[in-house]
Amino acid sequence: MLNKYLNVLFTLCFLLILPLLGSSQNEKADEKDEDAFAIRSIFDQALTQSDAYNWLHYLTKKIGARLSGSPQAAAAVTYTQQMLDTLPLDSVWLQACMVPHWERGEKEIVRVVNSTKMGSVELHGVALGNSIGTPFGGITAEVVEVKNLDEVDELGEAGIAGKIVFYNRPLDPTAINTFQAYGGAVDQRGAGASRAARYGAVGVLVRSMTTGLDDVPHTGSLRYDPEYPAIPAIAITTNDAEALSALVAEEPVRVYLRSGSRMLSEKPSYNVIGEIKGTEHPEEIILVGGHLDSWDLGEGAHDDGSGCVQSMAVLQTLRQLAYRPKRTIRCVLFMNEENGLAGGRTYWEKSNEAGEYHMAAIESDRGGFTPRGFTCEGNDDVFKKKFRKVNRWLPLLEPYGLTLSPGGSGADISGLKGQGGLLFGLYPDSQRYFDYHHTDADRFEAVNKRELELGAAAMTALVYLLDKYGL
Amino acid sequence: MLNKYLNVLFTLCFLLILPLLGSSQNEKADEKDEDAFAIRSIFDQALTQSDAYNWLHYLTKKIGARLSGSPQAAAAVTYTQQMLDTLPLDSVWLQACMVPHWERGEKEIVRVVNSTKMGSVELHGVALGNSIGTPFGGITAEVVEVKNLDEVDELGEAGIAGKIVFYNRPLDPTAINTFQAYGGAVDQRGAGASRAARYGAVGVLVRSMTTGLDDVPHTGSLRYDPEYPAIPAIAITTNDAEALSALVAEEPVRVYLRSGSRMLSEKPSYNVIGEIKGTEHPEEIILVGGHLDSWDLGEGAHDDGSGCVQSMAVLQTLRQLAYRPKRTIRCVLFMNEENGLAGGRTYWEKSNEAGEYHMAAIESDRGGFTPRGFTCEGNDDVFKKKFRKVNRWLPLLEPYGLTLSPGGSGADISGLKGQGGLLFGLYPDSQRYFDYHHTDADRFEAVNKRELELGAAAMTALVYLLDKYGL
Repeated sequence: MLNKYLNVLFTLCFLLILPLLGSSQNEKADEKDEDAFAIRSIFDQALTQSDAYNWLHYLTKKIGARLSGSPQAAAAVTYTQQMLDTLPLDSVWLQACMVPHWERGEKEIVRVVNSTKMGSVELHGVALGNSIGTPFGGITAEVVEVKNLDEVDELGEAGIAGKIVFYNRPLDPTAINTFQAYGGAVDQRGAGASRAARYGAVGVLVRSMTTGLDDVPHTGSLRYDPEYPAIPAIAITTNDAEALSALVAEEPVRVYLRSGSRMLSEKPSYNVIGEIKGTEHPEEIILVGGHLDSWDLGEGAHDDGSGCVQSMAVLQTLRQLAYRPKRTIRCVLFMNEENGLAGGRTYWEKSNEAGEYHMAAIESDRGGFTPRGFTCEGNDDVFKKKFRKVNRWLPLLEPYGLTLSPGGSGADISGLKGQGGLLFGLYPDSQRYFDYHHTDADRFEAVNKRELELGAAAMTALVYLLDKYGL
Repeated sequence: MLNKYLNVLFTLCFLLILPLLGSSQNEKADEKDEDAFAIRSIFDQALTQSDAYNWLHYLTKKIGARLSGSPQAAAAVTYTQQMLDTLPLDSVWLQACMVPHWERGEKEIVRVVNSTKMGSVELHGVALGNSIGTPFGGITAEVVEVKNLDEVDELGEAGIAGKIVFYNRPLDPTAINTFQAYGGAVDQRGAGASRAARYGAVGVLVRSMTTGLDDVPHTGSLRYDPEYPAIPAIAITTNDAEALSALVAEEPVRVYLRSGSRMLSEKPSYNVIGEIKGTEHPEEIILVGGHLDSWDLGEGAHDDGSGCVQSMAVLQTLRQLAYRPKRTIRCVLFMNEENGLAGGRTYWEKSNEAGEYHMAAIESDRGGFTPRGFTCEGNDDVFKKKFRKVNRWLPLLEPYGLTLSPGGSGADISGLKGQGGLLFGLYPDSQRYFDYHHTDADRFEAVNKRELELGAAAMTALVYLLDKYGL
């Protein structure tokens, strides 16, 4: 009751202010007040009327993990398409793409087999995404620990051949932005297997990509360099990495690995797209998006169910406020960000072919935590000038704890840079993200309703300003 | 190993820079660089070498809830005193105070007894702190719902006498700062019972003080006005409040209440205090603190175990960096903030009697979440000038996501304002706080290690600047 009443009230206030929005171009102070009022209305609406949290509940609890090629990924396509249809929008459609279909297979085994101190010790491991499995009976080999890829080169064939290389460089705990810590360590996961295979390694173990010490293994994609043999790669928990490192320091350690993971044939899948057509400049597109696929562990709640429902909520909030955008506002839920980026690549290709112009694109793919602002990038020739314009809106965003800074946007939208617009990444508080990232712990319960809604509201506010003033 | 190495490294770097800190008073740019380096060292140290999280684990898991007058509160006094002793400090002592001793007694019963639609319905309730209980057999009366205290006045004796008044005004969900939402609703909990008793009510039910809709009841203190009879007061969950409101809207509803809570005789307890004496201005005190007591539900992790261990960690970090402060840095862990403020009052009284000067005091009592800055207050005559000086340090704090704004500090330090210094409150992200506040859910697991440590580091950085430059 209260909610319905508030909804009607907000909408009325917003409609009353709408005629003013156009009429006072010369009165900057009034303009600021109107914008402040509009953004306040957006936050009020998002914090009381949004379906983002309900949608996330369905995506995570009713559907679950949504690995590319899985039945759950297909269900997520159908569900989100239906939800976009209910808003309603001017058009909702699917964009076909072929995605890799990797599966984990049976639970992995990682076992120290010969510690004189501890005997046989089970470690908690999960195969890295895209990894091949071991032979059916598994493999056993001596472990050689390294801190980085260069050390593998230094050890060379003499030190590596026939062994399991154990990458154990931690994320830098002193980085305030945990994504920076992640960026400084993730080369071990992405490129470690092929670097080790180059010198004859039979497998790799990788310390989980997390800032803390715990018992939760983190998956994530690797890329095989086709020049070298593919070898199995398994992530172990940070606690197990510390323990294994201590054992290796004392005596030669042999580890048994078994994994049934494998790459199957490509499967057809889809990006889900919905849009509100612009009234004045329909050819200028403002994209909001996240990725619909997730890893097969947990429920893909923060990564990236949150980004999807926030993007959908941007359109819902604008609709609820009866806002008619001048420019086209498009929500894109990308498929296959995690292990291939097939959805993103397809989208850019088709968009470039069609000669589209994405004036701006905002991706939310850093978790559904309290928003602290946006990072922004663009082609060198346009970035400085356009970013300066965006920065003029900062006083309107600061009351909501939001900042703007240069920085990466999101993998799914990165290929749109050539169109000359600005690309934004929602930047939420990053401290808890790597407690959940790519793990079984990334579940609905880890997402806070208000934090999720504030992120959606922040995106909606930025879309409102981009739409009103252009770039 | 890595940690020990880093510790030594940080300390060395810090010691090397120390001589520079004094010698370049005229070179502002160098000064800025040195301060930036010192603050970076503080964060590095706090994120790798702090015992804050271990201390919190002990306080919550080994000791548990620490209601004033309880054995657990006594254990917390002894434990934290011992931990401060290990740092070591120049002096550690206990300051005696008498605290109220309230106990909840048996599990409360709140039951709708006569709904024609639903029959008998159990609601989830917890007695408010300081509340009297019901008679042994409980009470049954008709419920009258109100949204605020004024409505009770309007209904008067005719509408209230013999009834149970049900306060059901929600926290404003659109407030970005949840403490603001709390402040707008908490009068119902604090003053609702006596307002209702004035017109002959026999009991009150209060909607839980939380932003969300859930099944967790929130306790918290009430204050009886001695002019009116004390009547029992119980908080019910927000979900139950919504359900009860729907029932009341349809038909007269009678509720059965039973609670065995009661106030016992005052007990002796203590504030725990430790300090590093200043080398140049020992008479100028910079206080850091939190409160050691908690409610009897949950483990008092965010409220306020976090604030206590963060305050202790400020001194630990300064010690680890071998920093010799010019001014006296004092950590105070206050007793009885939750239901009496006896520790705070005793501290102010003794401090004023002794003619002490708290140049600054920083309380952390808003949860152990990612810090977003500090709020600051002071007496009118000094605030403007001193706060302007503090604001000059903002560029040094901004890289850590910290802001400064006028606002309340903390209940335990509020009485020091008359000494003419500045009072600060650590201001963390507030979105999740009222998911846990005063409930069984306020447990160790709800606190994130990095977020806790970042808060301690933020406090240490501010202490460093206050100590170096004075006010």
